[in-house]
Amino acid sequence: MGKIHEACGVFGIYDNDGLDVVSAAYYALNGLQHRGQESAGIAVNDGGVITGHSDAGLANEVFTDTALRMLPKGSMALGHVMYGTLSGNSRMDVQPIIVNHIKGNLALAHNGALTNAAELRRGLENNGMIFRSTSDCELISSIIVRERLGKGSIEDAVSAAMNILEGAYSLVIMSPTKMLAARDPFGFRPLCIGKIKDSFVFASESSGLDSIGAEFLRDVKPGEIVVADKNGLRSIEGLCSKKNALCVFEFVYFARPDSVIDGSSVHNARRRAGAFLALDHPVMADVVIGVPDSGIDAAIGYSQQSGIPYGLGFIKNKYIGRTFIQPVQTDRENKVRIKLNPVADTVKGKRVVLVDDSIVRGTTCARIVNLLREAGAKEVHMRVSSPPFLYPCYFGTDIKSRDILIAANHTEDEIKDILGVDSLGYMSVENIKKIASNTKVGFCTGCFTGKYPCNVPECEVRNKYSEKIK
Amino acid sequence: MGKIHEACGVFGIYDNDGLDVVSAAYYALNGLQHRGQESAGIAVNDGGVITGHSDAGLANEVFTDTALRMLPKGSMALGHVMYGTLSGNSRMDVQPIIVNHIKGNLALAHNGALTNAAELRRGLENNGMIFRSTSDCELISSIIVRERLGKGSIEDAVSAAMNILEGAYSLVIMSPTKMLAARDPFGFRPLCIGKIKDSFVFASESSGLDSIGAEFLRDVKPGEIVVADKNGLRSIEGLCSKKNALCVFEFVYFARPDSVIDGSSVHNARRRAGAFLALDHPVMADVVIGVPDSGIDAAIGYSQQSGIPYGLGFIKNKYIGRTFIQPVQTDRENKVRIKLNPVADTVKGKRVVLVDDSIVRGTTCARIVNLLREAGAKEVHMRVSSPPFLYPCYFGTDIKSRDILIAANHTEDEIKDILGVDSLGYMSVENIKKIASNTKVGFCTGCFTGKYPCNVPECEVRNKYSEKIK
Amino acid sequence: MGKIHEACGVFGIYDNDGLDVVSAAYYALNGLQHRGQESAGIAVNDGGVITGHSDAGLANEVFTDTALRMLPKGSMALGHVMYGTLSGNSRMDVQPIIVNHIKGNLALAHNGALTNAAELRRGLENNGMIFRSTSDCELISSIIVRERLGKGSIEDAVSAAMNILEGAYSLVIMSPTKMLAARDPFGFRPLCIGKIKDSFVFASESSGLDSIGAEFLRDVKPGEIVVADKNGLRSIEGLCSKKNALCVFEFVYFARPDSVIDGSSVHNARRRAGAFLALDHPVMADVVIGVPDSGIDAAIGYSQQSGIPYGLGFIKNKYIGRTFIQPVQTDRENKVRIKLNPVADTVKGKRVVLVDDSIVRGTTCARIVNLLREAGAKEVHMRVSSPPFLYPCYFGTDIKSRDILIAANHTEDEIKDILGVDSLGYMSVENIKKIASNTKVGFCTGCFTGKYPCNVPECEVRNKYSEKIK
Amino acid sequence: MGKIHEACGVFGIYDNDGLDVVSAAYYALNGLQHRGQESAGIAVNDGGVITGHSDAGLANEVFTDTALRMLPKGSMALGHVMYGTLSGNSRMDVQPIIVNHIKGNLALAHNGALTNAAELRRGLENNGMIFRSTSDCELISSIIVRERLGKGSIEDAVSAAMNILEGAYSLVIMSPTKMLAARDPFGFRPLCIGKIKDSFVFASESSGLDSIGAEFLRDVKPGEIVVADKNGLRSIEGLCSKKNALCVFEFVYFARPDSVIDGSSVHNARRRAGAFLALDHPVMADVVIGVPDSGIDAAIGYSQQSGIPYGLGFIKNKYIGRTFIQPVQTDRENKVRIKLNPVADTVKGKRVVLVDDSIVRGTTCARIVNLLREAGAKEVHMRVSSPPFLYPCYFGTDIKSRDILIAANHTEDEIKDILGVDSLGYMSVENIKKIASNTKVGFCTGCFTGKYPCNVPECEVRNKYSEKIK
Repeated sequence: MGKIHEACGVFGIYDNDGLDVVSAAYYALNGLQHRGQESAGIAVNDGGVITGHSDAGLANEVFTDTALRMLPKGSMALGHVMYGTLSGNSRMDVQPIIVNHIKGNLALAHNGALTNAAELRRGLENNGMIFRSTSDCELISSIIVRERLGKGSIEDAVSAAMNILEGAYSLVIMSPTKMLAARDPFGFRPLCIGKIKDSFVFASESSGLDSIGAEFLRDVKPGEIVVADKNGLRSIEGLCSKKNALCVFEFVYFARPDSVIDGSSVHNARRRAGAFLALDHPVMADVVIGVPDSGIDAAIGYSQQSGIPYGLGFIKNKYIGRTFIQPVQTDRENKVRIKLNPVADTVKGKRVVLVDDSIVRGTTCARIVNLLREAGAKEVHMRVSSPPFLYPCYFGTDIKSRDILIAANHTEDEIKDILGVDSLGYMSVENIKKIASNTKVGFCTGCFTGKYPCNVPECEVRNKYSEKIK
Repeated sequence: MGKIHEACGVFGIYDNDGLDVVSAAYYALNGLQHRGQESAGIAVNDGGVITGHSDAGLANEVFTDTALRMLPKGSMALGHVMYGTLSGNSRMDVQPIIVNHIKGNLALAHNGALTNAAELRRGLENNGMIFRSTSDCELISSIIVRERLGKGSIEDAVSAAMNILEGAYSLVIMSPTKMLAARDPFGFRPLCIGKIKDSFVFASESSGLDSIGAEFLRDVKPGEIVVADKNGLRSIEGLCSKKNALCVFEFVYFARPDSVIDGSSVHNARRRAGAFLALDHPVMADVVIGVPDSGIDAAIGYSQQSGIPYGLGFIKNKYIGRTFIQPVQTDRENKVRIKLNPVADTVKGKRVVLVDDSIVRGTTCARIVNLLREAGAKEVHMRVSSPPFLYPCYFGTDIKSRDILIAANHTEDEIKDILGVDSLGYMSVENIKKIASNTKVGFCTGCFTGKYPCNVPECEVRNKYSEKIK
Repeated sequence: MGKIHEACGVFGIYDNDGLDVVSAAYYALNGLQHRGQESAGIAVNDGGVITGHSDAGLANEVFTDTALRMLPKGSMALGHVMYGTLSGNSRMDVQPIIVNHIKGNLALAHNGALTNAAELRRGLENNGMIFRSTSDCELISSIIVRERLGKGSIEDAVSAAMNILEGAYSLVIMSPTKMLAARDPFGFRPLCIGKIKDSFVFASESSGLDSIGAEFLRDVKPGEIVVADKNGLRSIEGLCSKKNALCVFEFVYFARPDSVIDGSSVHNARRRAGAFLALDHPVMADVVIGVPDSGIDAAIGYSQQSGIPYGLGFIKNKYIGRTFIQPVQTDRENKVRIKLNPVADTVKGKRVVLVDDSIVRGTTCARIVNLLREAGAKEVHMRVSSPPFLYPCYFGTDIKSRDILIAANHTEDEIKDILGVDSLGYMSVENIKKIASNTKVGFCTGCFTGKYPCNVPECEVRNKYSEKIK
Repeated sequence: MGKIHEACGVFGIYDNDGLDVVSAAYYALNGLQHRGQESAGIAVNDGGVITGHSDAGLANEVFTDTALRMLPKGSMALGHVMYGTLSGNSRMDVQPIIVNHIKGNLALAHNGALTNAAELRRGLENNGMIFRSTSDCELISSIIVRERLGKGSIEDAVSAAMNILEGAYSLVIMSPTKMLAARDPFGFRPLCIGKIKDSFVFASESSGLDSIGAEFLRDVKPGEIVVADKNGLRSIEGLCSKKNALCVFEFVYFARPDSVIDGSSVHNARRRAGAFLALDHPVMADVVIGVPDSGIDAAIGYSQQSGIPYGLGFIKNKYIGRTFIQPVQTDRENKVRIKLNPVADTVKGKRVVLVDDSIVRGTTCARIVNLLREAGAKEVHMRVSSPPFLYPCYFGTDIKSRDILIAANHTEDEIKDILGVDSLGYMSVENIKKIASNTKVGFCTGCFTGKYPCNVPECEVRNKYSEKIK
């Protein structure tokens, strides 16, 4: 539906209560599924032996009765959901990755993207490593394993690896006896810690905790390693600093509204975004509607701030499957219409404020506006709860080049015409940094400004990388 | 999730443009899927030969690539989605039903429930008919076929059958050369007519038209038969009267908000219901939230009328599959929590107005209230956009006995305590009749009043019937 | 592979020992699967309530773990495997058929074909019956149910029905409290009785008993009804006569070699057929080979009689699935080659006697001969263990018209040339009647002689019927 | 069914004719499926980009319509079928393996087992390699890739790798532009070259060529590397020697009878084995039968030599699926009976010579003998077409320890009693070397004699290895 996509969601559980860790991972992945719908995997640690199952599909498709029965009972489990076009050899890329090495074994689930991947890969290959996939996950696991060979513990190996890795990574790592969570020093991607009875849980978002009834303890700090083992939880903070750069899109679009990330409610941040929009781009109108599901929260915020009533603008068809069957009328129907139907009563004859979280290519947005016009909207005022998208992202989303970005290639006036709206208002870069009121970490706004918090890959490599995440 | 359930959704297309009727039926069923998620079927008429495929599951599960490829191209198609616990021999009950009789063949899709089914069945059996299922659909098809044997046309047969059938039925019927839509004289269930290019379409709701880009023409009138054949559309109105009794729950809960039924917007009716609630049961509060998905519209209406801000109260997990896997903690988790997670930011420390469309058993509702309390709601004021449910329904829903109805067995005060709410306000029977402002048909409110628009089955039969629809 | 096909295999179990009747039906269907590979079904009687599951596919495909789990434990079960091209509405034709009637319910599995189906169908339709399928099975169940309404017991109803039904039928019938087996007075199709502990079993062939470790008791006699209920087994022999006409192709091709039918070993009958061939059509040769699987037994018999060594002529690829994927070289490969590969060592430079059980169209046979030539066979002498196929069959196989029969349209000399063989010898009609040495029932040899043991449908109807079993 | 198992079958095609290489690989895997039924995979080279699909299951289960459609058209393809219990992380072990390395990419399919795997693995790990699986295949690919980094071509890399690898390996390797076949200097496992039009094909056995209509050219010589590229075929014979040691079990059991390996017909070799048995272990008897499928050929040979008639002893149920459902009577049925049913007519009252290719544990064999006794056999004389199995195999089969071998733990008299036979005769080691009359390569008979053609792993490592192939 014309959105940017997050790469992944990760989950881990270290059991101290005789819980069913596979069931926990399964339900947690359901609560993190919005972070990646193309593959799902679970790895289980049963007395130090790590086995797993993963495949293309939603968690509830991959983990059939039979698939769940084939996994052992264990005392630790790792889970992963992934976005990423699966084709050809890509099953090799499915996570969690499980590695057998000279000192034991290891499973790893990763969310993010390294900025020095090409360089690291080249270095390892020159030193004898042979990769089976092109994934960062295999690369990270190789670095950790290499460090492990010269270190006394897995946490020392992860510490050492974190001195080597650059870019965005939120990791959950399972060794024969320990479960670790680690977050890159910038904290690009979220990662939090929960507790269920006396057992410990790590998840990309608190929605992964809620879905198994676990209690939220706190976020993993940028640069921190948290170790769960038989002695409980402990923290290694060697790489923690103050130069954080949480991806602001986690608040704008990726995370689930009921999650709390780095101290701020996602829903609240989106409502605040809507309020900022209402303050910066007021308009005389009759109703405020949001594009489901991600524009709803900001629309509510816009409505509350502006006093213009909130309305139900669209019904999203939740039953549409992923098979694409030839539609009846190729000229009139399209994927947008099949997925979204406007509620005519809400918009007919009205001046409508349409709130969405972002505009990437603009194509989907133009179609949505057209649906409103057909349903009788008199005016359509587009409000976007993020600034114009101008630069590629190197930290784990699928925006690979400026070519596809409407804002990078058109003026706002042109965009207004392309979308067919009566007015257009974007969130300012200044305000977007303020939406998460309680969050003390800084934000990465590189995709809006081109100013990234750390080095990004060289141009040539960039293209290579682009190919990969295509 | 503790709701009453509609039985079915029906669809038919008579092609005059070389459209792909199978694809049309497939997409239309996606747009009607909310009316029944347990089975889906399509029958195709290819030069007078009728074949079909149907099975348990959502339309997108039943109609895989392979299943669609196996259906012939045709010039007419019938579609059906059904609610109803599938077990044992029930595959026989899956619709559309296809019948081969002495004068040709017939396919039929039905939404509703007959009140004289037991009597008709007994009569036919005494006269030589042997049924393979216990469904009303097979019964109706038998009566139409028997009438057909003595009549000159399928429309005459349907007319004659309508003099015999009592109760609720919205039918789409496919003969070798014609497509018919018929609605019982009370018009208990909706049925509408659409047009796509020069082809004609029938669907339970306009959402089934929208999902294929068809234009809404009008509703089938209660008691009317509409015939689509090579001469176009024509109407037989012999049984039309003014004593209509559309099920008011179509507006309250069953239909999709973007549908328009008998002249009124469903979304608008629900918003009006919310407004009536706000007028009748005002309360001092900070936020109005709805139980997704069906309580959202009325919550918006309550908010607009009362001026209390509308908020996003819950996130519904749309990825949860139907496999039920043992949850992690049996004491704390339950199906409600796994499906619904409150947005703490919206309710924490707030006085919350919680709007839902109905209360059946009360169990689910009590759990939802509890979730809000856990999330920090200071007060919870329950508002229900339908009157107390006191009597069984005989017209196509699954409320089979008073025993399970909380309102039939407790006072409002008791219910307030059972739900754990600070106040409780139901819609009045008087007001619910006014929610669909443009609808000229009358409403059936039998489930609230016990006063049904026509005879209902005797007690003993009632129980039998109850068994059937269990 | 160019063969005639049997219609069906049937099975029933009446449990007195707490056996798992679903498991018994499942394994028995595996042992009867050679009689029909296109669909499989099981119906279970659990305290008088009959439910079932059936679908297109082999028994082990239809009855997955999940499908088996969904069936209830019960005290009786019925099983059915079917040959027949499945398309469109054909799921309605899948057996066992389950019927709910005014006096109870009934499940029925049928093997055979009625010769007065068209007439009976017309009669019932004129008297109010409406059929959902075109199958004999639904027709038979309707007649039994109609008779049941006026009779005191299911066995009386079946007796009465047998006075109405004409043609071939081996039935297993399950009422709420009884299991019945019935065979038409000519005994066209086999049906036998077994015992496992104190429980009773019916099966088309003894291979169905062996596969569950049941003991063979005896065959159901032509014209007999056998009833299993709480009083044990009892027999109703009112329609038994001496004019039997067992289909001789049961011995020649349909049955499994390890089965014993009406007193004779199938393998022994085939070996005897081979011996007769050797006596009537001797030839100087180096090796005798059979076309797998059905020609093997007769080849062994030919070898034993002639003294020419038996050899392994072909390897049959048992892993080829039913998906047809485009082969690599369309000119050289074909389905025959992919399925069968000659063992060059056996035939190279040799004079080969090639034994097969029958020739229908001749196309497959010609390709097999060609494979032998390519593998280096010096001479190929074809011996066929059945007489020339000259007339259609009306009793449950798929030979619907003379047009496709090579022997009905060519002289033996022409056939020899078409097949590309050096000599050709058919079994004589006289000898084929002698192959089953211990069988006291007579044989139907209508397909060889055109003289059928009973009336066959009129020409016009014949064609209609032909259409059906196409 | 109590047999030893081959590890794998391999296939490769280099297209020069615009053939559909995926279809070729699919059909070839069907023709090699008997070498491994637990997983199947295909890798395709499309303009230097290698992608693939592999999974647990038969080729026709893994390669559904959809799976085949997802593979690209290409100009080279590699195929692999594998035996090996799949569990946990084993999907990582599924072949062909695809590797992305610094100089390009590589796909590899392997049949065999290295004897220095543990040592090589340790060495590589000490030098920076991290393995994701415990398979020889990943190890071999790593060694080839490491050699490739310092060499000018893939064939030089493979040559260099072959100086490092010890044990049994028949490889097919696909580089961006070339297809290579390589066989270890002892030639433990077969590998042959075929031609289809102007395209080149490699396959474990000629049955893989026959199934796509390819012409057999010759075997790959032990120690030879054959390269197919745009210049045609060429051979590198640096490692060829005269000390060959083809696994004699390829002739006895693994290969398909219609295959020709290293110059000898497999069927002929088995018939000769039967003849040797008849000469060494004559007996007065009435019929010779073989255990299907592998004992049939030797039984024919025994019959031809002895003059005792060959008979059809058993029917094997080819429809039994892999799901194991609880049988009906646990005391009487077992997997053997469900799979095999004796043909009573052949054995009743007879003195039976029962020929099988080998006895491993003896359990299955004893059950088969018991089935014959129950079917009425008067005497059972067991003849085994291979010598007693006394030592483990290190070259690619699943016989991991002496503990399970009946012959290693009992005298022949004891075995006779355990099996319940009247006499027992094994093939002699001397004669088994003579069965393949035209084969010029020598044989490995280590499993009979404990004298292996090369070093085998140390005891401790042996156990480790055993664990692996469990």
